Amino acid sequence: MPFDLDKLCGDDLFGIQCLPYGIFQPSDGSAPRIGARLGDHVLDLFGMFGDAYLSASALNPLMEQGRGTWNELRGRIIESLERPRLRDLVVRNARPLNDVHLGMPFEVADYVDFFASEHHAVNVARLFRPGTPPLHANWKSLPVGYHGRAGTVYPSGVPVKRPWGQSASGDGQAIYGPSRKLDFELEVGFVVGRGSPIGQPVTVDDFDDYVFGASLVCDWTARDLQAWETFPLGPFTGKSFLTSISHWVVPLAALDGARLPLPPQDPVPASYLGGEVPAWGLDLALEVAINGHAIARPNFRDMYWSPAQMLAHMTVNGARTRVGDLFASGTVSGPREDELGCLMEISKNGTHPVTLGNGNTRSFLEDGDETVLTGHALLPNGLRVGLGEVRSTVA
Amino acid sequence: MPFDLDKLCGDDLFGIQCLPYGIFQPSDGSAPRIGARLGDHVLDLFGMFGDAYLSASALNPLMEQGRGTWNELRGRIIESLERPRLRDLVVRNARPLNDVHLGMPFEVADYVDFFASEHHAVNVARLFRPGTPPLHANWKSLPVGYHGRAGTVYPSGVPVKRPWGQSASGDGQAIYGPSRKLDFELEVGFVVGRGSPIGQPVTVDDFDDYVFGASLVCDWTARDLQAWETFPLGPFTGKSFLTSISHWVVPLAALDGARLPLPPQDPVPASYLGGEVPAWGLDLALEVAINGHAIARPNFRDMYWSPAQMLAHMTVNGARTRVGDLFASGTVSGPREDELGCLMEISKNGTHPVTLGNGNTRSFLEDGDETVLTGHALLPNGLRVGLGEVRSTVA
Repeated sequence: MPFDLDKLCGDDLFGIQCLPYGIFQPSDGSAPRIGARLGDHVLDLFGMFGDAYLSASALNPLMEQGRGTWNELRGRIIESLERPRLRDLVVRNARPLNDVHLGMPFEVADYVDFFASEHHAVNVARLFRPGTPPLHANWKSLPVGYHGRAGTVYPSGVPVKRPWGQSASGDGQAIYGPSRKLDFELEVGFVVGRGSPIGQPVTVDDFDDYVFGASLVCDWTARDLQAWETFPLGPFTGKSFLTSISHWVVPLAALDGARLPLPPQDPVPASYLGGEVPAWGLDLALEVAINGHAIARPNFRDMYWSPAQMLAHMTVNGARTRVGDLFASGTVSGPREDELGCLMEISKNGTHPVTLGNGNTRSFLEDGDETVLTGHALLPNGLRVGLGEVRSTVA
Repeated sequence: MPFDLDKLCGDDLFGIQCLPYGIFQPSDGSAPRIGARLGDHVLDLFGMFGDAYLSASALNPLMEQGRGTWNELRGRIIESLERPRLRDLVVRNARPLNDVHLGMPFEVADYVDFFASEHHAVNVARLFRPGTPPLHANWKSLPVGYHGRAGTVYPSGVPVKRPWGQSASGDGQAIYGPSRKLDFELEVGFVVGRGSPIGQPVTVDDFDDYVFGASLVCDWTARDLQAWETFPLGPFTGKSFLTSISHWVVPLAALDGARLPLPPQDPVPASYLGGEVPAWGLDLALEVAINGHAIARPNFRDMYWSPAQMLAHMTVNGARTRVGDLFASGTVSGPREDELGCLMEISKNGTHPVTLGNGNTRSFLEDGDETVLTGHALLPNGLRVGLGEVRSTVA
C-alpha cells in the first residue's frame, strides 16, 4: 500500500491541524507508548524523537513536562510533517491504526463532572420538578459539579455492563435488580496537565497553563438507581460503574481557533469566575448515534459555563489539582429537540421513545445496543479538528 | 535512655495488640519507608525483614501483596517481639517517634464518604428540614454515599486553610468570601488493599479479603459553602479542600476482637447487603477535642450501616476497587448530647455554641483553633487498640 503523507496531513479530521495524543501498543507486542494520531495512522513519537517521557504507557509524564514542552513537542511534530528532509523519519514511525491497540490515554487522578448546560438543566427540571422554577437558586451563580469515580474511567471500546442496584418501586419502596433505565450522557472532558499547591486556587486566566487538552466523555448513567439514591448527597452508584473517554486527547493548541464567546451570563458571576478575557466556549459539533442511527447533534458552544470557570470553581476553595485530573462538562444539550445529549431528555424519561429507523424505538439503552459519540471542532478557516469517538456496547 | 521493649509491647494503646502501619522518614534523611508503631517508637520493618515492598514510601505495595502476606507479616512482627533471641533485631530497628517524620500512609485511589450514622442523619434533618420525616425514604434501604476528592486527603498535622467559596446571603443571593461555618466531621475510614475486576461486586462476606485496615478520618466541611452548592448533585467545594487522616492504618486483624453486632436494621436490607454472618460493627471509642477541651465522645458501635455493607454497596453496580481506595463512615454520632461528631450538630447550626472552658464558646471553628480526633478499639479482654490521632490547626 503506498504511503501518502500529504494525504494523511490533509485529513479532514485528524490532519496536521489536529494531532491528538494517545497510547498505542504495536501488534508486535512491544511496549505501549505515546503516539499522535495522523489520519488513519499513529506516529510513534518515541521512535521519532527519543525523549524518555514519550516511552511512557500514559500521557501523564508528558503532561508533567509543562506547557512549554507541550507546545514545543507539537511544534516538532508539525515541523517533521512539513519538512521534506524529515519525511523518512515520519514514514518509518507511522503505523496504521488497524495494526495497533489503543489504550487508556492517561491515568486519571481525580474526576469531576459538572452540570454546565442550561438547556440540559432546564429539561431535567421540567421532567422531574414540573411547576417549579426550572433552575435552582444556585445554578447561575456557580457551575454545579460533583466528584465521580476515577477508577472506573475507561477508554472507548470497553463494554457497558448493565449495573445492578436499588431503585424505587411504584409504591416508593426499594427494589434490587438490574437497571431498567440505562442512559448515556454526551460530554466534553478536560484533562489537567499541571498540579497546583493545596490552598492556591487556579484562576480563570490560568486555564492554558493547567489544561493539557480535551476528550469526548460518555457519562453512563443508570437513571433509576440515580433517582433513588441521589438525595441528599448526589450521584453515586447510578454513575460510578463506568465512564468512557475517547482514546485521544486533543491538545488545547489545536482548539485555539474554535474558541468563541459564551452566551451571556446573567447575573454576572462572582469575581473568581471572571477573568481578563470574557468567558469563552468552544465550537464543537457533537453527535451521538445508537446502532448506527444518529439521534442528536448538540454543539458545545451552547454551554452556559466555560471550561475555565469550571476549573476556577473546582479550586476556589484551595483544592489542589494533580496531573491527570479530568473534569467533564456534564451533558451537552442545545435548544433544539435534535440537540439533546442524553436519552432521558430525548425520550422525556421514557414517555416519548425515539425512533432508530426500521421501526425500532428506544426509551433507554437495551442489551446489545451500540452507542457511538463523535465530535469535532469547527475552525474559522473551515478546517475540522477531530475529537475521536467513544464507542461502547451494552453487554 | 534505657530501651524497655517489654514496656513498649505492653503499651496501653500501641502495644503488641495494635501494631499499626505507617510511613516514617528518619531524621538522618534516609528514604521514607514502612514502619509499625510500637508504643512511642516505630519499628523499621525493612530493616528488620528486608522484603522489598517494605522499603516503599507508601503502604500500597504492602497492600498489593494480599491478605496472606498481611497476616504473615503481622505474625512475623509479633514473633520478633515475643522471642528473646530476636530482641536485638527489634532494638536495632526501633526508632523513637520524636526522631522521625511521619508521612502520608498510603496513596489514595478513590475516596468515598458515607452517611451511615442514623443519629447524625436525624440530627441534621431536624436542623434543616424540621417538620418532615427525619430520614429520607432511601436512608434505611442503602448506605447513602458520594465520592470525595482523593487528591486532597492529607495526613494529620497539615493545617486547615479556611476555604473561600460561595454561600447564600440572607436574601438567598450568592456571596463570595471565606467560609464562616468551618466544621470538622469525626469519621472512621477503611483502606482497601485489593483491587477487584470491573463488573464484579465485592460481597459483604469478601470484606476481610479486601480491607487492609482502618484509620481515623476528619472530613473538614464548610457548612455555608455546602448548603449553597449541594442541590442537586451533593457536596463539592464545601468538602473538597481537605480531608485529614491519621498517620497510622490499624490492620483489620488488630480489630477482630472489637467486632460486635450492629443495632437492628429494620427493614431488612436488600440481599446484597446481607451476608453469612449478621452485620457487625466495631466498638471504637472516639473523642474530639478543640483547643484541648474534649467536646464529644461518640462510639462507632452506634452506626446503622456496617463497613462491609458500605463496601458491598459501593461495588454493587460493578464499580471496581483499587488498592488504596478509602471509604469513610460519615460523621459518627451517638444518641447522647455528648456523642455528636460535628460542630453543626453540637451547636445546633450555631444557635447553641459549645463551651470550651475559660468562657470560650464555639459555634464553628475559628482561626487558630486546634482540633484533635483520637480513638481506640475496646477489646473484650480489656485491652485497647489505638487508632492514632488527627490533629490540625485552622490556618
